[in-house]
Amino acid sequence: MAKTRTQVAIIGAGPAGLLLGQLLHNVGIDSIILEARDRVYVENRIRAGVIEHGSAQTLIEAGVGARMQREGLIHHGIELLFQGQRHRIDFQALTGKYVTVYGQHEIVKDMIAARLATSRPLHFEVENVLLLDIESDAPRVIYRKDGVEHEITCDFIAGCDGFHGISRDAFPKGAITGYEKTYPFAWLGILAEAPPAGEELVYAQHERGFALFSMRSPTITRLYLQVEPDEDPANWPDDRIWEELHRRLETRDGWRLNEGKIIQKGVTAMRSFVAEPMRHGRLLLAGDAAHIVPPTGAKGMNLAIADVRRLSQALQAFYGRASQQGIDEYSPQCLKRIWKAQQFSGWMTSLLHCFQEDSMFERKRQSALLDYVVNSRAAATGLAENYVGLPYEETLSE
Amino acid sequence: MAKTRTQVAIIGAGPAGLLLGQLLHNVGIDSIILEARDRVYVENRIRAGVIEHGSAQTLIEAGVGARMQREGLIHHGIELLFQGQRHRIDFQALTGKYVTVYGQHEIVKDMIAARLATSRPLHFEVENVLLLDIESDAPRVIYRKDGVEHEITCDFIAGCDGFHGISRDAFPKGAITGYEKTYPFAWLGILAEAPPAGEELVYAQHERGFALFSMRSPTITRLYLQVEPDEDPANWPDDRIWEELHRRLETRDGWRLNEGKIIQKGVTAMRSFVAEPMRHGRLLLAGDAAHIVPPTGAKGMNLAIADVRRLSQALQAFYGRASQQGIDEYSPQCLKRIWKAQQFSGWMTSLLHCFQEDSMFERKRQSALLDYVVNSRAAATGLAENYVGLPYEETLSE
Repeated sequence: MAKTRTQVAIIGAGPAGLLLGQLLHNVGIDSIILEARDRVYVENRIRAGVIEHGSAQTLIEAGVGARMQREGLIHHGIELLFQGQRHRIDFQALTGKYVTVYGQHEIVKDMIAARLATSRPLHFEVENVLLLDIESDAPRVIYRKDGVEHEITCDFIAGCDGFHGISRDAFPKGAITGYEKTYPFAWLGILAEAPPAGEELVYAQHERGFALFSMRSPTITRLYLQVEPDEDPANWPDDRIWEELHRRLETRDGWRLNEGKIIQKGVTAMRSFVAEPMRHGRLLLAGDAAHIVPPTGAKGMNLAIADVRRLSQALQAFYGRASQQGIDEYSPQCLKRIWKAQQFSGWMTSLLHCFQEDSMFERKRQSALLDYVVNSRAAATGLAENYVGLPYEETLSE
Repeated sequence: MAKTRTQVAIIGAGPAGLLLGQLLHNVGIDSIILEARDRVYVENRIRAGVIEHGSAQTLIEAGVGARMQREGLIHHGIELLFQGQRHRIDFQALTGKYVTVYGQHEIVKDMIAARLATSRPLHFEVENVLLLDIESDAPRVIYRKDGVEHEITCDFIAGCDGFHGISRDAFPKGAITGYEKTYPFAWLGILAEAPPAGEELVYAQHERGFALFSMRSPTITRLYLQVEPDEDPANWPDDRIWEELHRRLETRDGWRLNEGKIIQKGVTAMRSFVAEPMRHGRLLLAGDAAHIVPPTGAKGMNLAIADVRRLSQALQAFYGRASQQGIDEYSPQCLKRIWKAQQFSGWMTSLLHCFQEDSMFERKRQSALLDYVVNSRAAATGLAENYVGLPYEETLSE
């Protein structure tokens, strides 16, 4: 068995794990990152693409935001479409902030390149990962790579390996509780080789279901349709997708999508999940390993960034000032933001989706809420301040 | 059969009917008000007590607000109590507006006195009321009073006789649709001879259920508890009521209710209801005859006032300028405000009540929402602007 030591063992090379490694590197804290998949897979895994104001700042400050700054699209607002009319929510005017549209997999590429440049270890395709002694001051990680058994001894383990990862399961029975909500629909998402027909995202509420117009670049349009939760993409030939998109995204002013070759098609389940607490002993969870939001509020990756931002500060305080406080406050402080994001994501979801079981009363109430949101500065500001990201709270209460 | 003629026959002498009579009188339009109950009953029927900023202005402009201005309590905010802490929502700072706490039955007394001073007819204890020919230009109202049959021929009938009144049923079958939602709880309300322990209303969210601290005067406290929907007040002896109130309204800073003799006790059902449309031919519904809100948002009487304000303007345009437009727009314009009030009332209700069927996920989301509302100026402003009353929209789009 090959043995090594590091300060922080990071499980998972998604946005959470890679950013944590970068933030720790920047303050001279050593880490080893382990990833189950290969590099090509993680660099091409299409996920979120809306980066909160504060998330973008965090990436820039961490030194991994240069390409995002060059290639990302700055969005100063979104549009809500209902009853054939578009209504703009002006983030800039309401909050002074904006979001950046830049694919999560592009951030992952940038952070892998940055990691490799530091020469600190990042191992892909590791197997049989086991987290041990997490209640001690010297936890261990066992794994296999290229047929060889490895053991890392460390001070902390950061579980950044997503909802289906192994880290959450390493908590002892009864030491963690999952709170969950599922939704009676899913999103069918496509990428199309078509120039986006507009510069900002359009969130549509329609009696046939939600639809979202988005974009990845000046030549690629990203579109979503609310579908049945167990929908088979095979039921959706290209013609049907375009017909349905045109119907749900139709506006009275004649705005119209550009069609193009559909180069990707997939169904995303809608789920809310929160695990509490996010820490047990020396194991700390971050990102999707601890929580999942429905994609409506574009909060998934942003929550991961907020988690690791706080975690890196806690570890810096631990090593720099021998302070345990940030570690102790990590879970309760993160959870405040996470539950607010769940609240917002659930609110955006119910604002825009068709719930089959809804009474006509609820549908009329939904219309009134849309009408209120676009006509009340306070309500529009509430949407905007959540969408661009609530302020990071004081990081340590010392 | 005794026959008379008037311009507007008003069914019901609650706040809606009486205010409509007053507003019409002020512009020289004649009306007859019919009420099924006797005067003592309607003058002592305890109902709502929170008057929106604009409702108070409407009463003052109508000439029936003098005693309210002398005796009503101006409230510049409310408090939200959860996890043992009170958080003030400052209406004045957030919206520049306030509400007036003054019992609905006091307004009714003031408006009955004002009506009698005009010498225009107001008949109590009428029976067997029948609305006829509402699709013609000369609708009729038949009723019996003191054993004598009467017939009123008029231009319009205003149905202001509440949820259980006869007016809504006079719509032809299929000409009206009711949208309804019931809640899995009720409010047990008491009046106590005790000086209020605070100057503003306290809305409490507690794991045992919602509670509300309110007041009627410097010597009378009004209190509410969330209870089972079919609760028998007999299950609530005074001791149990006080014990439960103290528990749900307990604060860490030691604020405490004053106890006193309980002089009234009753259970109020929680229901949302909207009838659409509010007009058929020459019959127009206003107030509870057309819609019911749960009391959490304090919107019931205020919606009635907004309805009759618009109705009086429509009738004034009809008689003064031979314009039908206000009559035609009465129902759709009123319904915009009504559905927004349903939305707000439902939101306040779900923010503060315990839903037995709620998952732990929903409970944690409720806590996050409370936390967000008291910490976000935008969210607090949203609550405040709804509570003090959204602006009346342009009354006629001409």
